[in-house]
Amino acid sequence: MKFYYAPGTISVATGLLLQEAGLDHTPVALSFADGDQTKPDYLALNPKGRVPALVTDQGILTETGAIAEYIGSLAPDKNLVPADPWQAAQMRSVCYYLASTMHVNHAHGPRGIRWADSDAALADMKAKMPRTMADSCTFIEENCTFAPFVMGQEMTIADPWLFAICCWLETDNVDVDHFPRIKAHRAMMAARPSAAAIRAYGLLTKDFA
Amino acid sequence: MKFYYAPGTISVATGLLLQEAGLDHTPVALSFADGDQTKPDYLALNPKGRVPALVTDQGILTETGAIAEYIGSLAPDKNLVPADPWQAAQMRSVCYYLASTMHVNHAHGPRGIRWADSDAALADMKAKMPRTMADSCTFIEENCTFAPFVMGQEMTIADPWLFAICCWLETDNVDVDHFPRIKAHRAMMAARPSAAAIRAYGLLTKDFA
Repeated sequence: MKFYYAPGTISVATGLLLQEAGLDHTPVALSFADGDQTKPDYLALNPKGRVPALVTDQGILTETGAIAEYIGSLAPDKNLVPADPWQAAQMRSVCYYLASTMHVNHAHGPRGIRWADSDAALADMKAKMPRTMADSCTFIEENCTFAPFVMGQEMTIADPWLFAICCWLETDNVDVDHFPRIKAHRAMMAARPSAAAIRAYGLLTKDFA
Repeated sequence: MKFYYAPGTISVATGLLLQEAGLDHTPVALSFADGDQTKPDYLALNPKGRVPALVTDQGILTETGAIAEYIGSLAPDKNLVPADPWQAAQMRSVCYYLASTMHVNHAHGPRGIRWADSDAALADMKAKMPRTMADSCTFIEENCTFAPFVMGQEMTIADPWLFAICCWLETDNVDVDHFPRIKAHRAMMAARPSAAAIRAYGLLTKDFA
């Protein structure tokens, strides 16, 4: 498989999961600064112009949630997706919250142009974003088990995903000290061999250990 | 199970899936006009203050994607989630796109206050929303099979979900005639007995047949 990523983005979640699952893959870096994600070669793979993209023998996947579940299916012994339907549903509640609420809240800082055009509107979005991200942190802090993982004693696909988003909290002007369980989770994830592996090739750019 | 919904919202997807799966449940209406979703009784069930919420014997689920997969697991004979991992991953790519991009684009019309405060910013979001929704329609029109369902010959959880969002296209000022495959899918879904059932109790408020 080929794994297209950009440093420090949500593709951190996919990179960690590929390591945790122990799957052979070739990481391919895109530079957002150079606009690689909007060049024709990449748009042919991923018309959304975003990362991640996972190119498999069966085809291409471009949504973190779909990629994560697929990686889970390729490494069933790792239990990255709970076998029990209720446990899986609770995990997916977290994943969908991360995708459709928390990540979206963050995006209104750096990527407000997706939803409004005027400089004033973009400034308003940027100004509100630290509050909406802190609200999301409060929700996660209060509604995940952190025992020590999001769903309990075993890592699931929700853990690398939450970690990837929480790498942004300092630049999002959220005071992480207000969220001690998230902070501890982030440090735990950052200390895993999977994090060292993606740091080694430049996907993970921070160190929370 | 108790199913909390509000007419015309994304809870249309859950309502349809409960019908398609043939699961016993009690629908409970919330009035957004009366602010029912922000009253203490409901917030105790769903602290997000949104719909849907599905109250099961095992607990409460509040994200459409998690609810939909759980309903699928309760009716395995309906194949609402493909058994093949690659097919399931492709379906989840659509679901995550609906949740994190298309539904979010829509929300910038009626719910911009989630991400900005000024009247000018809210007006900018409202003005841009028809374009971002049309962009999402283009992506769906070009990337789903519609043969006749989103994933092919069998309905999956992606179909009621896409239908629920596409019920908004007229009020979102998107010209549905530009998207004939979406329009045909919507009419097909609206003609199913599941749609008649949720129309009967007031969840579905439109008729596209």
